[in-house]
Amino acid sequence: MTQNQHYTHWQHRLHEIIFEADTRAGKYFDIFLILAILLSVLVVMMDSVSAINRAHGTGLLMVEWGVTLLFTLEYLLRLICVKKPLKYAISFLGVVDLLAILPTYLSLFVPGSHYLVVIRVLRVLRIFRVLKLATYLGEASVLIRALKASRRKIIVFLITVLTLVIIFGSLMYLIEGGANGFTSIPKSIYWAIVTMTTVGYGDISPKTGMGQTMAAMVMILGYGIIAVPTGIVTSEITRAAQKGVTTQVCPECMAEGHDLDARFCKHCAAQLNLSPGEVITR
Amino acid sequence: MTQNQHYTHWQHRLHEIIFEADTRAGKYFDIFLILAILLSVLVVMMDSVSAINRAHGTGLLMVEWGVTLLFTLEYLLRLICVKKPLKYAISFLGVVDLLAILPTYLSLFVPGSHYLVVIRVLRVLRIFRVLKLATYLGEASVLIRALKASRRKIIVFLITVLTLVIIFGSLMYLIEGGANGFTSIPKSIYWAIVTMTTVGYGDISPKTGMGQTMAAMVMILGYGIIAVPTGIVTSEITRAAQKGVTTQVCPECMAEGHDLDARFCKHCAAQLNLSPGEVITR
Amino acid sequence: MTQNQHYTHWQHRLHEIIFEADTRAGKYFDIFLILAILLSVLVVMMDSVSAINRAHGTGLLMVEWGVTLLFTLEYLLRLICVKKPLKYAISFLGVVDLLAILPTYLSLFVPGSHYLVVIRVLRVLRIFRVLKLATYLGEASVLIRALKASRRKIIVFLITVLTLVIIFGSLMYLIEGGANGFTSIPKSIYWAIVTMTTVGYGDISPKTGMGQTMAAMVMILGYGIIAVPTGIVTSEITRAAQKGVTTQVCPECMAEGHDLDARFCKHCAAQLNLSPGEVITR
Amino acid sequence: MTQNQHYTHWQHRLHEIIFEADTRAGKYFDIFLILAILLSVLVVMMDSVSAINRAHGTGLLMVEWGVTLLFTLEYLLRLICVKKPLKYAISFLGVVDLLAILPTYLSLFVPGSHYLVVIRVLRVLRIFRVLKLATYLGEASVLIRALKASRRKIIVFLITVLTLVIIFGSLMYLIEGGANGFTSIPKSIYWAIVTMTTVGYGDISPKTGMGQTMAAMVMILGYGIIAVPTGIVTSEITRAAQKGVTTQVCPECMAEGHDLDARFCKHCAAQLNLSPGEVITR
Repeated sequence: MTQNQHYTHWQHRLHEIIFEADTRAGKYFDIFLILAILLSVLVVMMDSVSAINRAHGTGLLMVEWGVTLLFTLEYLLRLICVKKPLKYAISFLGVVDLLAILPTYLSLFVPGSHYLVVIRVLRVLRIFRVLKLATYLGEASVLIRALKASRRKIIVFLITVLTLVIIFGSLMYLIEGGANGFTSIPKSIYWAIVTMTTVGYGDISPKTGMGQTMAAMVMILGYGIIAVPTGIVTSEITRAAQKGVTTQVCPECMAEGHDLDARFCKHCAAQLNLSPGEVITR
Repeated sequence: MTQNQHYTHWQHRLHEIIFEADTRAGKYFDIFLILAILLSVLVVMMDSVSAINRAHGTGLLMVEWGVTLLFTLEYLLRLICVKKPLKYAISFLGVVDLLAILPTYLSLFVPGSHYLVVIRVLRVLRIFRVLKLATYLGEASVLIRALKASRRKIIVFLITVLTLVIIFGSLMYLIEGGANGFTSIPKSIYWAIVTMTTVGYGDISPKTGMGQTMAAMVMILGYGIIAVPTGIVTSEITRAAQKGVTTQVCPECMAEGHDLDARFCKHCAAQLNLSPGEVITR
Repeated sequence: MTQNQHYTHWQHRLHEIIFEADTRAGKYFDIFLILAILLSVLVVMMDSVSAINRAHGTGLLMVEWGVTLLFTLEYLLRLICVKKPLKYAISFLGVVDLLAILPTYLSLFVPGSHYLVVIRVLRVLRIFRVLKLATYLGEASVLIRALKASRRKIIVFLITVLTLVIIFGSLMYLIEGGANGFTSIPKSIYWAIVTMTTVGYGDISPKTGMGQTMAAMVMILGYGIIAVPTGIVTSEITRAAQKGVTTQVCPECMAEGHDLDARFCKHCAAQLNLSPGEVITR
Repeated sequence: MTQNQHYTHWQHRLHEIIFEADTRAGKYFDIFLILAILLSVLVVMMDSVSAINRAHGTGLLMVEWGVTLLFTLEYLLRLICVKKPLKYAISFLGVVDLLAILPTYLSLFVPGSHYLVVIRVLRVLRIFRVLKLATYLGEASVLIRALKASRRKIIVFLITVLTLVIIFGSLMYLIEGGANGFTSIPKSIYWAIVTMTTVGYGDISPKTGMGQTMAAMVMILGYGIIAVPTGIVTSEITRAAQKGVTTQVCPECMAEGHDLDARFCKHCAAQLNLSPGEVITR
């Protein structure tokens, strides 16, 4: 039991520093971690530029190893201070933490492996670990709630867009043909996506009058239907932002989520304890 | 009557499986159908890529025939199990079902017909048959209601955009002229659409200073007026999403705007007249 | 007086047909007018395509004269049947009506005048004459009211965008320089507009690393601030659509514009006559 | 004291003219200033066009000096008529005022300095000085309040976009490789930004089937997530536009959400405590 108490003491403190951000030490740790993450991603990027790689390859490698050792230490500390190390290790952020250090060690055995680059870039996902702890949690949760609530409408929208894109792409394949760059249906669908999303590279573009007329229709359609996902998400963000409008909890049935102008609980008709100067948070 | 009863029995069961999705068999049928539709569209796409066509043309043809026979069987079953086969056959989805199988049979008599490809691609529309039955019905109906309600505003917007595009296109035809790619008014209007919808291929672009100034105005205009359809649709989706929430009027104080889960009026605490089986749509 | 009555009789009837759309004759006239307008604009467009002009130039010229004579007759009839011909003649739509016929007559004296083409295209504006009379009036007025209400916010937004575009354009002129296509500040500002509005022709694009970094910032900025006009217009359309939410007029002070959930007049505290089954129109 | 009174008299009057816009002289001064600012920025722009510079270089230089002397006089007058000259001098607009005149004088000592051009262009920021005083203040403040309120949500959104762009860019670097223009991770990230913001220059575009598939996903993602900032800002503008409407809380029933013109509570008919000079902002 003393052992457990001793264990709890410094482990709990470590947990507070590493996983939380409400102490001064925790905040400094978070800021330090963000800087380390940004540095490590910057190193991966610069390493891919051949001119920089040739000139400063050794220096970048040293920074890379420094950051990796740091992240390894951090990973071990995280494993030590959580109560259920395995649960942490297989959680999303736990896997990202591991992926942040593995590629560098792997590169010792599989030198020159090109694909490890992207895994090393995944370190950028660790930035969300810090955000998760910070004051941005509430804001992010509003966005996530809004996107979750509009999930199904967005799927319906996406299926409609994909259907349109397949039909328009096939039509353009017929109208323009291979001579104008529409060499196959998949390529024509790629063109339709480039056009409908208003990206418009111009690597493939219609040459015939009929093709340009059809393209103009696809553009106006794409220009217009962007309104649909925007409408969906705006509607849900407005709802999500209004939710929790009142801090009131029904004194009888503990129900939450009352409207700003509610005076009685809508679930059990009990009167809500509205104090005159109640601060209404959004 | 016995005949009719027997008829009803297995026909009704078939109808439940093929047309509905609330039984286990119906759900499996739907999933199987989606996979078959996706496979058949994939085959059409791959067949249009000349490299794949050369290498696996025979294999693709066999899959095509397999899928066609499957869809033919399904079409016949649908005809058998509905009470009014003719009404089904001339409905939108009924015609799509027929168009999904016809081209393959036609290709026996009219070999090499290029245009059948697009008709075969129309199979992708059948995906909506499955959606129609599924849980997405409500979500889709909100979107459709919102778009229907904003139909007229969108038409006014489209006419305005087309008018602007015609006028700006003609102006650019005068300013830039054929030497810079603006060879005719229709082509200049095509440019104006490409620019105003912010697609921007760059296949035709102004070269003179005056043309670029005019183009900049068209871009800023296009960038700005995208706000209009977005505003229209957002406004209507917000309304459509709120509709159905409030079929209830407080019997005491006539207050409206009660939430879906409200059982008592939030203004005067009177009990709302919730009928047990009230269907709440949203 | 008899003279006046006779005058009133057929002139009033003509006014009803030409200017209004609530009689059968008026509706047919409107549909005929739309078709004539579309035909005349189509003729101008086709005439500018050199291949069509060579092959069917004479035919197009005949159609052009036919439409012009028709519009001339219509213009004279409009002048005759309105009570204040001069007021009509100098109104916006009156001037458009005149501009629709003038260029063809002018072309007799100033043959080959290139600039008359655009004036002839302005006929497309006449389409709004028909819309003005039709059922779309209300919908258009909601949009116009929303745009008017957000006029000032949009001007503030436009000034901000133009300021950003001038500063970013000048910066890119310094960073990239003439060798990469940024030959002058106006051209660089043109690039900044092309980029910030997400049009992206690609006729001028940054080549240096620093220029591409700056360009990426401009893109993300442009991608983000499109939200501002959209937010402004959406907010106003929602407001404009909600206006007249309640049909209630205060029985005491005749004030209108009460909220949906208002039970007492907000101006004089009189109780509103809320009938239980009141139909609330938007 | 007499000295001070004399001082106050003409200095106060000058302050009214230069800093305020509610007198006739103040308005004329503002309009004159706007014209001078626009002229000076126009001169900088035209000076950068080599053809114009060669032909009218001397003329432009004279206008430049004229404007600079004018702005210098204005700057001195501003310094004289404010009560705390230092505080003005180090304020944002004060620094902009100084930067507007410095480059021209500096060009005497550091001739041909290219970088002074951008500083001279910064004069365009002075346009906000005039706006700040004008009727647009309220409108701008609604926009600024909305953007401030959505600051955190937008940061969360930007971090998500940057993370996506880094990951997609790295993936494309692997898939496409240097042969197709994706020569390094930073360049691939630049491509990802160009694509996700739907700008789409087309200077770098995927050539392989797998790359085009990935690109299509990035486009649809970018096309979709534009809805998020739009939703955030729309939601906040709607709130900001409604804010200020409701400084009143009903003294009887604590109800909020009263309209600007409400004098009685719409829920319980109690009189609202409207102070006579209550400033209602919107």
